[in-house]
Amino acid sequence: MSVAAAGVPVLESRDARGVVTLTLNRPGSFNALSEEMLDALQAALDRVGGDEAARAVVLAAEGKAFCAGHHLKEMIARPELPYYQGLFARCSRMMLAIQKLPVPVIARVEGLATAAGCQLVAQCDLAVASTEASFAVSGVNLGLFCSTPSVPLLRNIAPKQAMEMLVTGEFISATQARDRGLVNHAVPPEAVDAEIARLVDSILAKPRLALAMGKELFYRQREMGVEAAYQLAAQTMAANMMDGCALEGVAAFTEKRKPNWNPSQE
Amino acid sequence: MSVAAAGVPVLESRDARGVVTLTLNRPGSFNALSEEMLDALQAALDRVGGDEAARAVVLAAEGKAFCAGHHLKEMIARPELPYYQGLFARCSRMMLAIQKLPVPVIARVEGLATAAGCQLVAQCDLAVASTEASFAVSGVNLGLFCSTPSVPLLRNIAPKQAMEMLVTGEFISATQARDRGLVNHAVPPEAVDAEIARLVDSILAKPRLALAMGKELFYRQREMGVEAAYQLAAQTMAANMMDGCALEGVAAFTEKRKPNWNPSQE
Amino acid sequence: MSVAAAGVPVLESRDARGVVTLTLNRPGSFNALSEEMLDALQAALDRVGGDEAARAVVLAAEGKAFCAGHHLKEMIARPELPYYQGLFARCSRMMLAIQKLPVPVIARVEGLATAAGCQLVAQCDLAVASTEASFAVSGVNLGLFCSTPSVPLLRNIAPKQAMEMLVTGEFISATQARDRGLVNHAVPPEAVDAEIARLVDSILAKPRLALAMGKELFYRQREMGVEAAYQLAAQTMAANMMDGCALEGVAAFTEKRKPNWNPSQE
Repeated sequence: MSVAAAGVPVLESRDARGVVTLTLNRPGSFNALSEEMLDALQAALDRVGGDEAARAVVLAAEGKAFCAGHHLKEMIARPELPYYQGLFARCSRMMLAIQKLPVPVIARVEGLATAAGCQLVAQCDLAVASTEASFAVSGVNLGLFCSTPSVPLLRNIAPKQAMEMLVTGEFISATQARDRGLVNHAVPPEAVDAEIARLVDSILAKPRLALAMGKELFYRQREMGVEAAYQLAAQTMAANMMDGCALEGVAAFTEKRKPNWNPSQE
Repeated sequence: MSVAAAGVPVLESRDARGVVTLTLNRPGSFNALSEEMLDALQAALDRVGGDEAARAVVLAAEGKAFCAGHHLKEMIARPELPYYQGLFARCSRMMLAIQKLPVPVIARVEGLATAAGCQLVAQCDLAVASTEASFAVSGVNLGLFCSTPSVPLLRNIAPKQAMEMLVTGEFISATQARDRGLVNHAVPPEAVDAEIARLVDSILAKPRLALAMGKELFYRQREMGVEAAYQLAAQTMAANMMDGCALEGVAAFTEKRKPNWNPSQE
Repeated sequence: MSVAAAGVPVLESRDARGVVTLTLNRPGSFNALSEEMLDALQAALDRVGGDEAARAVVLAAEGKAFCAGHHLKEMIARPELPYYQGLFARCSRMMLAIQKLPVPVIARVEGLATAAGCQLVAQCDLAVASTEASFAVSGVNLGLFCSTPSVPLLRNIAPKQAMEMLVTGEFISATQARDRGLVNHAVPPEAVDAEIARLVDSILAKPRLALAMGKELFYRQREMGVEAAYQLAAQTMAANMMDGCALEGVAAFTEKRKPNWNPSQE
């Protein structure tokens, strides 16, 4: 299937409310993270980062697989250390771009999420899975330990559970993924739309700036000792409180009325 | 309700065994962390810190709410950055004082614990909740992301679960809080007394010094790499072993008799 | 029972596939970590570390107890700070040797695992427990807080759950240990063999080098900020990909055939 026939690697849609849906669009290759796909994802994330009216990102996928990880045919064609170093660095940069976006990123997982595809789920801020989805860090089956996927995986689930997935390459179900903390919700396929909509609507009802300040703080304070974390958090919260939305929100609450703001525009 | 009519903001009681119960006593304002309340809590914690016969703290609350977070009416009356910086720094100092106390602090949660009230639960060493309690970091509903609450929250529960609570502001139940690690036990309202008593009695049966050394080590080693953590832990444990209580406790165990100590006094 | 009568403190067996089983062999003293036992474990782990054909370690135990922690009779006979400092440093070195081994280490727990015995389970990469096993960090009952056990415990389970175990000294069951992340599986006693075999077989089917690189990376990246972690992981994964096994494994996958390697030898 040629690139032209397949269409763009990542479908982008954006509704009037600022909800951006990025849909991996290489179902024939299980949405593998080819160079083309990595570039398209990076470009799409960069666009969201520069779009001050964007409010949330839903990362979805066409076809049976959410994402099967790296594009192995492409990789095996270039058996050179500098090529692999560049490739994994590029992929890591894209993963970190998800964390650096000022809006929440929600993975919508309806099929297989393996290797760097499982990493993509782990790296998102939130994740909703169909009960038909399944998850593995299966590179080790081919002799390639999922080292980069282990970075967000170990920051999401308990270490012995992470280690077992990494050394056995075995699949876990969506409900196991939920119970362990890898995804927020595991719902029947027909309920995925509603679950995503519920999260998105809740996000849209909050001021953009508060979420942006909070998300940045969340990941920064996680890497700090508790005293430094509290210092940064206290500064962040004071700055957040001085914003018009928070002042109005708090005033409205004390006056038992609805805040007079449009969360998306302020 | 005037302060005079309401009585002191924090009721303090201390039994003969050294169990200090601090009861938030502003049920009319859902035990919000007003300046008065923060000062009273800090003073009470400082007193416990200086009381060498104190053995444990139970942090309880009057009325339907455990604690609804910051006192919003007070906050909105002073829309000044330095005021908010000072307020959140003060609150963070109080939260850290819980961690720095040499005795275990147990939250007793029977109603709503929201925003900095949920933070208070997260910051305690242990927590027992009534099944009628519920938990949220709901500041974001007013445009004020719960940044300081995110510090202990993220150190208690899985990151995706923490992020969902922080961006949606939604409540979780006591059993969800228990399953996620935010509280130790969720029991019917009529069983809360017994559950608290069980923990307190267990603590009282241990030597005070061992708990103090252990608690300090617990939080310090958490912020270290594993090798440094082991070094500090090994030093701590050697020093602990040289204490009379440990020498007597270990000797008694090897001689199959009860240790000849009063845990509270040694 | 004399040492001679008891045989060696650690039984070592190694099958043709490179699976090393280390069996704690002091059932009469509940496999306590005496100086003799610590030295024997350290020596055995060092041998595995130097054995390039070793593929996995199973850490098992004779008798009713997996391991009851330090050897208290031995300890109480030497009430000297430098002795205890040396003892806990030696024990910590042995624990870290488990983490530093290039092959996965699986705890096989069929009875009590208390104090440093519980630590041993926490420190292993993977753990399988019989449903008749139980776990406690019970030193505090004797006035000796389990400070060194708290290091891997807090890196395995949620902090409030760890704190409760440490200050109460109470036991948790094998299923609780599994639900909290302290062990991977809790199965009936008669199913322990099969569960261990399943993990070992899965490990043996993977190339040794990939597991060694991955295990080292896993523990190193855990102590890093996320950006540094990604950098190291990307370098590791690129180096892993250049290995013959990975190149063959990936090629085989893209050609829909089995990889032409013997995982243990390459």
